[in-house]
Amino acid sequence: MYWSKTFIPTLKDAPQEAESESHKLLLRAGMIRMLMAGVYSYLPLGYRALMNIQDIIRQEMQASGAAEVLLPALQPLELWQRSGRDKDIGEVMIRFTDRKGRKICLGPTHEEVITDLVRQQVSSYKQLPVVLYQIQTKFRDELRPRFGLVRGCEFIMKDAYSFDRDEQGLDKNYQLIFAAYERIFKRCGLGVLSVEADSGVMGGSVSHEFMVPAQEGEDNVLFCAVCHKGFPAKENAALNCSKCKGKLEKVSTLEVGHIFKLGTKYSSVLGANFVDAQGKMQPIIMGCYGIGVSRLISAVVEQNHDANGIIWPMEVAPYKVIILPLDITEPKIMEQANNLHARLEGAGVTVLLDDRDERAGVKFKDADLLGINLQLVIGKQFLKDGTLELKERGKEEKNAVTAEGVLEKIRAALHG
Amino acid sequence: MYWSKTFIPTLKDAPQEAESESHKLLLRAGMIRMLMAGVYSYLPLGYRALMNIQDIIRQEMQASGAAEVLLPALQPLELWQRSGRDKDIGEVMIRFTDRKGRKICLGPTHEEVITDLVRQQVSSYKQLPVVLYQIQTKFRDELRPRFGLVRGCEFIMKDAYSFDRDEQGLDKNYQLIFAAYERIFKRCGLGVLSVEADSGVMGGSVSHEFMVPAQEGEDNVLFCAVCHKGFPAKENAALNCSKCKGKLEKVSTLEVGHIFKLGTKYSSVLGANFVDAQGKMQPIIMGCYGIGVSRLISAVVEQNHDANGIIWPMEVAPYKVIILPLDITEPKIMEQANNLHARLEGAGVTVLLDDRDERAGVKFKDADLLGINLQLVIGKQFLKDGTLELKERGKEEKNAVTAEGVLEKIRAALHG
Repeated sequence: MYWSKTFIPTLKDAPQEAESESHKLLLRAGMIRMLMAGVYSYLPLGYRALMNIQDIIRQEMQASGAAEVLLPALQPLELWQRSGRDKDIGEVMIRFTDRKGRKICLGPTHEEVITDLVRQQVSSYKQLPVVLYQIQTKFRDELRPRFGLVRGCEFIMKDAYSFDRDEQGLDKNYQLIFAAYERIFKRCGLGVLSVEADSGVMGGSVSHEFMVPAQEGEDNVLFCAVCHKGFPAKENAALNCSKCKGKLEKVSTLEVGHIFKLGTKYSSVLGANFVDAQGKMQPIIMGCYGIGVSRLISAVVEQNHDANGIIWPMEVAPYKVIILPLDITEPKIMEQANNLHARLEGAGVTVLLDDRDERAGVKFKDADLLGINLQLVIGKQFLKDGTLELKERGKEEKNAVTAEGVLEKIRAALHG
Repeated sequence: MYWSKTFIPTLKDAPQEAESESHKLLLRAGMIRMLMAGVYSYLPLGYRALMNIQDIIRQEMQASGAAEVLLPALQPLELWQRSGRDKDIGEVMIRFTDRKGRKICLGPTHEEVITDLVRQQVSSYKQLPVVLYQIQTKFRDELRPRFGLVRGCEFIMKDAYSFDRDEQGLDKNYQLIFAAYERIFKRCGLGVLSVEADSGVMGGSVSHEFMVPAQEGEDNVLFCAVCHKGFPAKENAALNCSKCKGKLEKVSTLEVGHIFKLGTKYSSVLGANFVDAQGKMQPIIMGCYGIGVSRLISAVVEQNHDANGIIWPMEVAPYKVIILPLDITEPKIMEQANNLHARLEGAGVTVLLDDRDERAGVKFKDADLLGINLQLVIGKQFLKDGTLELKERGKEEKNAVTAEGVLEKIRAALHG
C-alpha cells in the first residue's frame, strides 16, 4: 500500500480530548478519530489492527469448537422484560419505540436473544452441546466515556454462549474457552491477569475476569509478585497470596475479557429446555464469554509503546514493513522502493510505502509513531553503494542490507 | 466442520412469515432466523455466506484503490441538520436523545459523517484523491419490512465515498468503482442490469442502479432483449432501446447497488474545501457508492436455486463440499468420512460432514436444501467395492470415485 493511496492523518500533538497514553497515540498515529464523546471512527490503519485482532479471536474461538453467528443490535424489549433484566440494567440500555409502536432496545449484550433462539431450535439432549459466538457492535448510553476506545457508547465485543446438558459439559466448555482466551491475549502481545470475580448483573456462580495492567486503568487488581496469581482488589491488601503466600501488589488494569458460568439463570426464565436421555425435561446449562474487541486495541497500545509511538505486536500490526524512500525526487530511490514494495506484496508481506514528499525527519518520526515492525530506509547510502538500512521498531540496532538480501532478512525478522 | 459441532436447524416447511422463494429457502436451510419483523439473526451457514460475499467486496474495492474504514452507527443529529437531510429523510431515520441530552440518530447512510471527517484532515489538493469504504450495519424504521433480508430494519451495507480535486478525478473513480461492481456481482453468481437512475435524496447529477432480475422483486426495469441494456421502468414501455432499437421487456428486479456522482452537494454545505494548485479554495468533488450486502444473499438465492433448495455460486457457498456418510453406525464408513474430512481441510477445501444419525433420504434432502456445491456420498457401495459417489449440486450426473482419486476430482470440479 502507498501512503498516498490510503488515509493516515498523523498529528504532531494529541487533541485535548486525549487522556491516556494509548488514546493519545491512536489519535496521533491517525488510527482513530472522535465523532462525538464516546463514539469513534476507525481510519484505515486502526481498522487493519482491529481486523487482525478479530482474525486472532476467530481462529482461537473456532479452535475451541465454537461456531460464528451474527445477532441483531435491535432487540424487542419484551425479551428483557421476561428475563427481568430491563430493570437491572437500567438507563445504560438505549431504548426507543418505533413507528409501529414496538418497544425496541439496542442490545448491550445478547443472553436473552441467543437463549430464545436456541430455545426454538433445540429440544433434545442429542442436539447439545451448542457453542456460538459473534463479533458485533454494541451500544451503551454511557455517562462518562473514557480513554477513547476503552469506554464508549458504541463498541465491538466478541460474545460467546455455551449450551450444555449438564455441569460437566459447562465445565469443559468453560475450560476450553478459558484456554482460548489465554492464547488470544498472548497473540495480541498482552500480559493478562485472570482473576476470579463477581458475576454481577449477568448472574450465575463462577466468573473470571481477564485484566491487562495499564498505566491508566479502570480497576485495581491485587497481583502476587511471586506466582503471578491475581485477586480482586476488594480483598484486604494486607493478606498474602492464597496460593503461594507471596506478597500482593496493587496494579491498575483494564478489563479485556469476562467469562461466566451462568447455569440455568436464562434458560429457566426463558423456557429453554431439553429432554434428557431419560426422557426428563431440563433447563439447558449455559455459560457466556465476552471479550472487549475494540478496547483490546487500546490495551495493546497501553502495553506496547515508547516515548516515540506505538510498537505493535507482530500479529496485530496494520503492516509488517514500512519502506521509507528518503528522497522521492531521486528516480533510483523510488524505482528501488517500488520494486521492493512489489516484491514484498508478492511474498505476502503487508507493506506500507511512505511516498510523501516530506523531509527524512518527518518520515522517521511518523514511522516510529505508527509502530510498524520493520523500517526499511532507502537513503543517500543506497545511491553510493546500493545498501539499504533495516531497523526493527523499538530497537536501536540498524543493519545495512543489500536489495538482493533484504527479503530474506525481513522473513527472518518476521518469523524469528 | 462436523454438522454436530455447528448449528444448522433445517426445516421441512417454511415458516408462515416467508414470502419470496429466497426468504423461504434461507429459513428452511437454517441460514437465518427472524428475531422480530425486519430483524434477522445470521446462523453459522448464513454467516459464512455473508462473510464470503464481504471478502469478494473487500478484494474488489481494494483493487479499485479504496481503503477500508469503519464509521459509527451513532451520529450527532446536528450533522444532518447542517446538510438539511434530517427533514428530507423523514421518520425512517431512528432518533433518540441520550442521558446527556445529546440528539443522536442511527445513521442510515454516512455522507455527513465522512464529509465532516475528511473536512478536518484534508486541506490541500496534494492530499486528494481519497477513496474510503466501509462494510457496516445500518438501521431504518421500516414500516413494511419484506422478503427477509431484502428490506429490513437492520441490514449491512458497503458504502464507499470518493473525494476528488475535479470532475475528471470523479469520473475516473466512478468508472473504477462501476467496474469493481461488475466484478463483484459476477463473482457472486449474479446476472445484473445497470440502469441510469434518479439521484433522489442523495442529490448530485449522475447515478446508476444495479438491479438483479428476481421473481419477487421490488422495482421493475425495462430490459432490451437484444443488447441487454437496462432502462428505468418509468420510461414509456412502448419505446424501443435507445442504444440498438431492440424491443424492451419489463422485468421484476431487486436493487443491489447504487452509485452517485454527488459533486459538491455535501462538501459545500459542510465546508469540506481544499486549496488547489493555483492557491484557490474549492469544495471537494464527491461520489458515493452503495451495495446492499445482506440483501445480496437473498438476491443470490433468488437467482440460484431449484425446487429442492439453494445452489450456491462457488465463491459464496458456506462450504464447498458436503460429505454424506449414509450409515454412521458402520465404522468403516465413518472412518473413511473422517479421513476425507481431514484430507479436504488439510488441502484448504471447506467441508461439512453430516455426522447425524439420520436416514439417507433426510441427508440427501438437506444436502440439496443447503446448496453446497459438491456432495460426496459414502454408502453401501463403499462397503462392497470401496467406491464413493460424487455429485454436483444442481446436476443429475453421479460419478463413482475411489477414495484415492477423490481429492483430484474435487479439485477439478472446484476450479472448473
